[in-house]
Amino acid sequence: MAGVGVKDLLSADDIDERDLLDVLNKAEAIADGKLPARTSARMIGLFFEQESTRTRIGFDVAASRLRHHIVDISASPGSRLGKAQGEDLEDHIRTISEYCDLIVARTEHVATVEEIARLTHLPVINGGNGIGEHPTQALVDLFTIERRLGDVRRLSVALSCDPTARHALSFMKLLALRPPQRFTLCLAPETKLSNVAAAAIDDLRHCGTTIDRVDNVEATLDHDVLSIQTQRASSIISGRIGEMDAVQKAEDEKFTLTAEKILRNRSKTMIMNPLPRHSETDKSCDSLPNAAYFEQVRLSIPIRMAVLSRMLAGRRWTGRSRSRLQAGWPETSSPISSSLSQSVN
Amino acid sequence: MAGVGVKDLLSADDIDERDLLDVLNKAEAIADGKLPARTSARMIGLFFEQESTRTRIGFDVAASRLRHHIVDISASPGSRLGKAQGEDLEDHIRTISEYCDLIVARTEHVATVEEIARLTHLPVINGGNGIGEHPTQALVDLFTIERRLGDVRRLSVALSCDPTARHALSFMKLLALRPPQRFTLCLAPETKLSNVAAAAIDDLRHCGTTIDRVDNVEATLDHDVLSIQTQRASSIISGRIGEMDAVQKAEDEKFTLTAEKILRNRSKTMIMNPLPRHSETDKSCDSLPNAAYFEQVRLSIPIRMAVLSRMLAGRRWTGRSRSRLQAGWPETSSPISSSLSQSVN
Amino acid sequence: MAGVGVKDLLSADDIDERDLLDVLNKAEAIADGKLPARTSARMIGLFFEQESTRTRIGFDVAASRLRHHIVDISASPGSRLGKAQGEDLEDHIRTISEYCDLIVARTEHVATVEEIARLTHLPVINGGNGIGEHPTQALVDLFTIERRLGDVRRLSVALSCDPTARHALSFMKLLALRPPQRFTLCLAPETKLSNVAAAAIDDLRHCGTTIDRVDNVEATLDHDVLSIQTQRASSIISGRIGEMDAVQKAEDEKFTLTAEKILRNRSKTMIMNPLPRHSETDKSCDSLPNAAYFEQVRLSIPIRMAVLSRMLAGRRWTGRSRSRLQAGWPETSSPISSSLSQSVN
Repeated sequence: MAGVGVKDLLSADDIDERDLLDVLNKAEAIADGKLPARTSARMIGLFFEQESTRTRIGFDVAASRLRHHIVDISASPGSRLGKAQGEDLEDHIRTISEYCDLIVARTEHVATVEEIARLTHLPVINGGNGIGEHPTQALVDLFTIERRLGDVRRLSVALSCDPTARHALSFMKLLALRPPQRFTLCLAPETKLSNVAAAAIDDLRHCGTTIDRVDNVEATLDHDVLSIQTQRASSIISGRIGEMDAVQKAEDEKFTLTAEKILRNRSKTMIMNPLPRHSETDKSCDSLPNAAYFEQVRLSIPIRMAVLSRMLAGRRWTGRSRSRLQAGWPETSSPISSSLSQSVN
Repeated sequence: MAGVGVKDLLSADDIDERDLLDVLNKAEAIADGKLPARTSARMIGLFFEQESTRTRIGFDVAASRLRHHIVDISASPGSRLGKAQGEDLEDHIRTISEYCDLIVARTEHVATVEEIARLTHLPVINGGNGIGEHPTQALVDLFTIERRLGDVRRLSVALSCDPTARHALSFMKLLALRPPQRFTLCLAPETKLSNVAAAAIDDLRHCGTTIDRVDNVEATLDHDVLSIQTQRASSIISGRIGEMDAVQKAEDEKFTLTAEKILRNRSKTMIMNPLPRHSETDKSCDSLPNAAYFEQVRLSIPIRMAVLSRMLAGRRWTGRSRSRLQAGWPETSSPISSSLSQSVN
Repeated sequence: MAGVGVKDLLSADDIDERDLLDVLNKAEAIADGKLPARTSARMIGLFFEQESTRTRIGFDVAASRLRHHIVDISASPGSRLGKAQGEDLEDHIRTISEYCDLIVARTEHVATVEEIARLTHLPVINGGNGIGEHPTQALVDLFTIERRLGDVRRLSVALSCDPTARHALSFMKLLALRPPQRFTLCLAPETKLSNVAAAAIDDLRHCGTTIDRVDNVEATLDHDVLSIQTQRASSIISGRIGEMDAVQKAEDEKFTLTAEKILRNRSKTMIMNPLPRHSETDKSCDSLPNAAYFEQVRLSIPIRMAVLSRMLAGRRWTGRSRSRLQAGWPETSSPISSSLSQSVN
């Protein structure tokens, strides 16, 4: 591969500080009404093995605003991919590589998005890979913080969610590039951190951030920012939550945010949520000025436009990409074949 | 909400006479080759809970001709909407509201399109809501009449179909803005009019139109216009027709139009049909000059372009909107949740 | 119909030598970076009853590069076509004819694409009709040969595949317009040629091409070109292959191409494959300079752009169209109704 860095955005590790500032500045300009210089129309292939609203429609809208075209390249009833008499992922991606200029992929298994990136010379964006990462969501989160509150390095940030959730891992990794004053994890005492989550938090600590851990969301309401989602994201992604009964499905009260808690604490904390929400963010919060989750949705468009226009211009990512040099993924098995057989069932 | 009138086109009641003339004039100009002034590309979200050919593809084509973009925002296998671990209609529509500029919705239940309109600041077009209304189809019908035969106020118009069909209700309401000389309903003697249909006919009568009722389609063939469709539209929409046997499925001979009947009556009546047709409009009619139903299909594009460009320019509808001030909908129960659970099954 | 020739591209028989040179020259110019003169945006309807990757996405990409729009007009869960209370093919195509400017169709049964072409004034492209033909694939094949090796009339060409496969039939018919020096069929001794395949080969012989038949793919590796695909394409298309056991599914070793065979024969043969491949083209071949199958994928875009821009400009095909004058289709039964009922199940 020519040039320094990697062609794909698969992990927050692919992003270094200069990459990050470039994306945030581009997104800022777009959000303020300055479209990137017009280029020739490109073809963006959307490969989605999992349900998606914001990532799929968001990339569609972002591409359209840049006057690019979208084509669905997922395994679908009308596609040959994954069919008994059809085509395997390798031939499918090699075929798509002759048609498209960039691929956005959301995959069931962590390894599939790596596999796709390896099979093509096209730049690939990870739109969420199993229990892996979701780097563009982390960029959206950081952009939302800085657009509303300014430099994150002067702020305190709390994260209440399953720390192995893909958006959480990408978010913590990205924070290490612009470390906040304080970072607080809110989760149940019995929850153990995965190795990759623990490593990301260690990185933050080494950057000078004060690390705390609490087990009650109310204890985070003195922070500048709270990013919240269900504590059971991993269970939901793996489908295991379907086996739980209704009582267990409800979020533990200690991890549920309500308007009443915010008001009782006279909290100014900005509330973020990557959505979809479950019971952890009560709708009573929506009308408070703290709520920023639909602002996140809105700001996801300039971020995704900035990422697309950067990558379509051939600019590479110069981050550490540690995950792909070491055995960094939390899951490394999951052969492609099983991924595909699942996705078409 | 700023300005006079409503942002949405949910019912023919939203349209007043000036609105109607504006849309007809815009559509006339477009049909004659004058495209509306070019605007920046907008994003149109298509939310369809029911099957559709003309409305869905028609809005797609109309948007493309205006250089706007279409994105499918329906509950689909790839969407989170309505999924067990997914997202409810409120969060879905609030998310879409950050991405799109206008929503076209066809819904299973009458109330769902109202619910969508209430949840968003975007303009919403009702593309057919259960047994409610279908206002753009009524605009197409009126445009087709006036483009072929001139001012509808000088004409006699017959309607042979289930009078609770959504396109019929919207059509009768719209006619009250440009009342014909004569209006004749053709339906079985035992058929009772719904309250809303009876009210729409009363309105027409108050506008000076002579109202008649016959029970044989041949009795309408002296009119200038006949709009015909199956007498069992309500049953089809509600799925009940599936339970009938084949004999019952065939349209009653008295409500079936054939070329033989048209020729025997030396009729010049222009035949309209919103399609799809069932057995009520025999294909033998297609080659007669009376047939205008595929002309309706063609003229639906300029009408939908006119409606889209008007609403995307932020122009509001200044009709009576009685249905939303009073309890005007024929069905007011149907909670959103049941609508969604049905649409994804 | 005005003008000489036919509006549709349904068979390689529709193409005469001047048509062929026109398409190849247009495609050559496009492949070299010269886009056709910009025209107003048109609407292309994609009607696909069978799985497709290259044809469906390829036409989508080709249309987008020409700044045209694509709309899916297939029978789908959201469409009325083929539904119990929906619409028949005739009304569907007549409706689409009011919306679109051209239709690309892939159909289950041979006769359906003819039926569609008959029902509409729009130009129709056959994107593969059952066991019928696939003329644009044949154009891609010829273009790939001439772009890499020059005038096919100076070359030797081998074809190893089920000779009733639709791409094979179209390819042999097209070769008769630019007959190679030598043409060799590679297939099992017990395989009988269909009447149409035998006629196409007779045509080639009458054009002066030397015809051979071998039963081992290695015997073709002294040719300039080998187009290879599974010997069981017909079984796969008809779904019969699902009944075979795993042992039978594997391609016979004699019809399987491997890098080892190519290298052992010091073969310079250019290897084409319309894809998807099965076991007949081992992946060990991919890295050899002989492999041209992904180049075929790439060159399919300029060919499809050339065909689209020619047909959208109203230019007709002046070939023999023998298949539609005589009883040329290998299958003439298959009523539309059965085609539709299969496609929606």
